Amino acid sequence: MRVGGVYFDAARGAMDVIGAATPLVLESIRAMTLPRERFTLCDMGCADGATSLSMIGAAIGEIRRRAPTLPVCIVHSDQPLNDYNALMRTVHGLSAVESFLPAFDHLYPLASATTFFHQILPPRSLHLGFSACAMHWLSTRPCDLSDHVHPAAAEGPEREAYREQARRDWETLLVHRAAELVPGGRLVLAPFARDGEGRYFGRTRGVSVFETVNDIWRSFVDDGSVTREEYARMNHVQYYRSEEEWRAPFDDPASAVSRAGLRLLSLETRVLPCPLATAFSAHRDPERLAADYVPSVRYWSESIYGGALSPERPAEERREILEGFYRAYRDRVRARPSDHAMDHVNAYLVIEKE
Amino acid sequence: MRVGGVYFDAARGAMDVIGAATPLVLESIRAMTLPRERFTLCDMGCADGATSLSMIGAAIGEIRRRAPTLPVCIVHSDQPLNDYNALMRTVHGLSAVESFLPAFDHLYPLASATTFFHQILPPRSLHLGFSACAMHWLSTRPCDLSDHVHPAAAEGPEREAYREQARRDWETLLVHRAAELVPGGRLVLAPFARDGEGRYFGRTRGVSVFETVNDIWRSFVDDGSVTREEYARMNHVQYYRSEEEWRAPFDDPASAVSRAGLRLLSLETRVLPCPLATAFSAHRDPERLAADYVPSVRYWSESIYGGALSPERPAEERREILEGFYRAYRDRVRARPSDHAMDHVNAYLVIEKE
Repeated sequence: MRVGGVYFDAARGAMDVIGAATPLVLESIRAMTLPRERFTLCDMGCADGATSLSMIGAAIGEIRRRAPTLPVCIVHSDQPLNDYNALMRTVHGLSAVESFLPAFDHLYPLASATTFFHQILPPRSLHLGFSACAMHWLSTRPCDLSDHVHPAAAEGPEREAYREQARRDWETLLVHRAAELVPGGRLVLAPFARDGEGRYFGRTRGVSVFETVNDIWRSFVDDGSVTREEYARMNHVQYYRSEEEWRAPFDDPASAVSRAGLRLLSLETRVLPCPLATAFSAHRDPERLAADYVPSVRYWSESIYGGALSPERPAEERREILEGFYRAYRDRVRARPSDHAMDHVNAYLVIEKE
Repeated sequence: MRVGGVYFDAARGAMDVIGAATPLVLESIRAMTLPRERFTLCDMGCADGATSLSMIGAAIGEIRRRAPTLPVCIVHSDQPLNDYNALMRTVHGLSAVESFLPAFDHLYPLASATTFFHQILPPRSLHLGFSACAMHWLSTRPCDLSDHVHPAAAEGPEREAYREQARRDWETLLVHRAAELVPGGRLVLAPFARDGEGRYFGRTRGVSVFETVNDIWRSFVDDGSVTREEYARMNHVQYYRSEEEWRAPFDDPASAVSRAGLRLLSLETRVLPCPLATAFSAHRDPERLAADYVPSVRYWSESIYGGALSPERPAEERREILEGFYRAYRDRVRARPSDHAMDHVNAYLVIEKE
């Protein structure tokens, strides 16, 4: 994980997703009866906070239109090993990006290291929960994947184990949100997803991102650069749910989610084009595409692959292996630039607490 | 500032101060009408959170005696450049020290990077505010000090400028606390202070800590190791208030603090013996004292002195100067071990919001 600027530049795709979800946030605020005492907005899976700054600023602006002095708590949450130093600097205007903080009075920024698989906030204290590009993470690794780095491309019982874990995690995290939300409170979620045509992040056109990744790591196994055990640990502990899977707990009136009072107001799965591929179709410079593309891959993958390498290897050796991996990826992009695109495929959900 | 373990070992004196303040926390909770919805405790100036873990655990235990399932928010706050990664790891049990978190249900840990010179929490949302060894910091540097590193040992108009800044900061931070506190809510504060005999941190017996520090840095100016400008920037932006200065805004019924509804319930200034000097009087080993003592000095001083060195010096050179400074300090401790003691002199205040 990286600090401030690097994260930000590599995360333009994630910013587009948050941009696409922002109208849903604003509509949700407009539809709400605002509280008298204080409003709480929580961004779950915020990373360094840079990608959601504009959305949060827009949300506060929408609140301010109707409640000019209502105290607003902005809670940024992620897992305990997130880079909170980068987050605090981003929110408090000590990074290169512009924070929402100086533009408004009566704001109370807070951070939490409680994951969304647990209750982050006290009962009936949350008005708007937001999360983008985060809820594809699973709470636990169901099993290693023997033949692929990503469960979306895995098959058989291994894939089934990920599907089942994803089903349970979705229910768990929704039930916790139901406890946190005030009646009439809402969730706006834009998680990575699988659409009706089987498309998902980086697998929409050209060569799938995870096929490229898998292919390179398997070549590293073949030439002895990494072991089979390391490769097996490299799997993404993630799952891209389909519309049916997002809907399931809402469709079942007996589910814990329905009984907790959550209703699905809207769901749509959308593909957003890779900004780097779009830029390439204008500049046509394979070197430039490769130079921009690989940091973007690195941003969401380095901690996963680096963490899978044996701790018995010296740190320098592990770094060399990672450098070699990203060099190989860069070479592939340079060789066949039109094959590469990381389109974002996300579900956009609006959920209300009754 | 350092991560986890180092901070913790060097901060045993600060832990003793928090230990001495803990009964005041427990009495304050016992005296309170507990809320029905949620209880909020805020530790202001928490650093990496390690020194206050036991106090927070004891406070939650006291709440739990009367309200077994009351949701409790624990807010750790400090300034934006604090090490929040270390804090989150400490609170979430990923450091060497034991957190209060696993021992209780219905806890909601949060962090804030808003300094106590601003409002950290929404109006009427705080039940117990705590702060130890932190409120001697000033919000801004009134002036450089030409002849000393610490304003407590400075004289004339320079000292007066620090006194005046401290007076204003004390009012400002109390008025913000008055806004945050619920009626009947309390503050328990244990800031560095100056007692009736003119004693303060490290100036109670033997050679004063800040005289030693000042003496070494002046010798570095004399031999050309640092410039006069660097020395002038090395001053601690702090002030050790006297009992009269702590009391002033409470004694004046027309002050902003009194008008905001804060009352001083109790105030006492106490000297706690330096644990390292106490250990030395048993082991009598100057090497061991010097080895333990200097990290303790380093813990509260390195960022101040390091930050004062010219950024035009290469990082390596700045590090060499700091190493030289702490080496010189170690030599002094080794040469005359009985002269060295960092006794803590703190005021213990209990304040109530009407």
